[in-house]
Amino acid sequence: MLKPIIWDDEKGELILIDQRKLPHNLEYFICKTYEDVAYAIKDMVVRGAPAIGISAAYGLALAEIKGENIYRAYNTLKNTRPTAVNLFWALDRCLKAYEKGKKILDEAKKIHNEDIEICKNIGIIGEKLINDGDTVLTHCNAGALATSAYGTALSVIRFAHYNGKDILVIIDETRPRLQGAKLTAFELEYEKIPYRIITDNSAGFLMQKGEIDKIIVGADRILRDGTVYNKIGTYSLAVLANYHNIPFYVAAPISTLDFYSDEKDIKIEERSEKEVLYIDNVRIAPKNAKAYNYAFDKTPPELITGIITEKGIFKPNEISKIVNI
Amino acid sequence: MLKPIIWDDEKGELILIDQRKLPHNLEYFICKTYEDVAYAIKDMVVRGAPAIGISAAYGLALAEIKGENIYRAYNTLKNTRPTAVNLFWALDRCLKAYEKGKKILDEAKKIHNEDIEICKNIGIIGEKLINDGDTVLTHCNAGALATSAYGTALSVIRFAHYNGKDILVIIDETRPRLQGAKLTAFELEYEKIPYRIITDNSAGFLMQKGEIDKIIVGADRILRDGTVYNKIGTYSLAVLANYHNIPFYVAAPISTLDFYSDEKDIKIEERSEKEVLYIDNVRIAPKNAKAYNYAFDKTPPELITGIITEKGIFKPNEISKIVNI
Repeated sequence: MLKPIIWDDEKGELILIDQRKLPHNLEYFICKTYEDVAYAIKDMVVRGAPAIGISAAYGLALAEIKGENIYRAYNTLKNTRPTAVNLFWALDRCLKAYEKGKKILDEAKKIHNEDIEICKNIGIIGEKLINDGDTVLTHCNAGALATSAYGTALSVIRFAHYNGKDILVIIDETRPRLQGAKLTAFELEYEKIPYRIITDNSAGFLMQKGEIDKIIVGADRILRDGTVYNKIGTYSLAVLANYHNIPFYVAAPISTLDFYSDEKDIKIEERSEKEVLYIDNVRIAPKNAKAYNYAFDKTPPELITGIITEKGIFKPNEISKIVNI
Repeated sequence: MLKPIIWDDEKGELILIDQRKLPHNLEYFICKTYEDVAYAIKDMVVRGAPAIGISAAYGLALAEIKGENIYRAYNTLKNTRPTAVNLFWALDRCLKAYEKGKKILDEAKKIHNEDIEICKNIGIIGEKLINDGDTVLTHCNAGALATSAYGTALSVIRFAHYNGKDILVIIDETRPRLQGAKLTAFELEYEKIPYRIITDNSAGFLMQKGEIDKIIVGADRILRDGTVYNKIGTYSLAVLANYHNIPFYVAAPISTLDFYSDEKDIKIEERSEKEVLYIDNVRIAPKNAKAYNYAFDKTPPELITGIITEKGIFKPNEISKIVNI
């Protein structure tokens, strides 16, 4: 099983798979300080909402181990990326533990171990939605690499495969960072689950041809009305799925829910236009070209068939019931 | 004015801008034989439905000049790319001229010169649809580089700009070959028309934000019921435009109309999966990855607001009236 996040207890170091180097090289990035972790999140050595949360928790633990100012470390880590809520959730949980006199490292390990169980449950619960013979489209990477293990959307796909269902996965390449073509393809190759990569442009045409049975994506933040923030392109897929009557599912742990924010509070991260203008350090656009590079988009609840969590599958407008479970 | 196709009368050679080298290098590709032209079309030295037609006509003229078998040349050129109808239209027109004892080169020059006028008229007619202050999204390259000059969709944009309208063009990068980021950006840079490049993934989000006023694309083939075949991704844009009530226009010369075929007759070209798995010779996907690479898609008439031709703007279901004009 691919594990993007490893805590080395002996050395007191956080070891991350360097996802910038995939799919060609499986290299590791060692974090000895919270600043290393902040850099790793910002530069997308580690990415994916749950994985960012776990890494940030270990980052805060590193500050504690080194006897540094926890609040400064908290702020630095908090300001690495603005959209995924798990980052703030994990940091707040660790800070609360710290203020109660607990060891941050223990809390980080707890978050990490819980996430493995959560992802497993998402897969076990969600795989019931997949039929033998289905072709399932996924976007970006909501896989083991985006979490502690198994993934969210890919956990559903993994468990369908583990249970002997014959499925084909269509992977959107997911420009600009190509997490689909690079990371999701790497994971499915690793697990020997059949897949085909398509350009993001091709999804609508495959739906029109009747070749997509279901769509499953992850989430970076879910509001109480069921609005989902996720990787740019998710919204387009949801509109296309709606037009073609294809079920559109979001798979995410409960830590992705944000019941305190409204749409106006959410900042959609704009990343460097270089991510669009260059691909793997090769300039594709003219010398003076400019680009827009929104990293996420917003999908309204009416376009979502169901949200798959570790506590069950919910209609988007019923997701707020989860607090009573 | 950018001219992608030049006939050198002295040397009897066809000179093409090598569009594979853009936007970084403006190089030329010389065709001395019809086989050179066939290669140039196949490998996308020259691309865009009208430009392919003009080049193929000169290709047939080269066979005539060299005293080669015209029918063999016709077949070779015809089999270069399957979807754009202008290729067959131009070849058939030249063959008919040949069979009437006319010089193919004269017919090719006529097609070439007519196309310049046609594209100009498309721009003059279509620019009336553009308001001062509009943000217009375009896909792929339906520009001067896809025609003899001016372009189709970009002719509309050019003439709006020439007439002093303040517009911003949003360019879909258009994976896999990136004709938007490479060719359309190159043309607009050349003309100093303001633009921003986006990933194909971002179009839906910009529409949701209310930042797109109009969409204009080209076409590779239009059936009598107004069904449009164009670069992959066009259909997704049309569905998104429909969902957001954004006008969606297709700009194309009448030579793009195909009143003889039905949907079942149209072959959607599938190109090498390498175009998806590599970008500018850099492998992005895992070693054993496989991809689907459909080059075109099909947009039904109900998603199209209007078709801009050199003879006027038509509702898709009225396009067949054009034969009576």
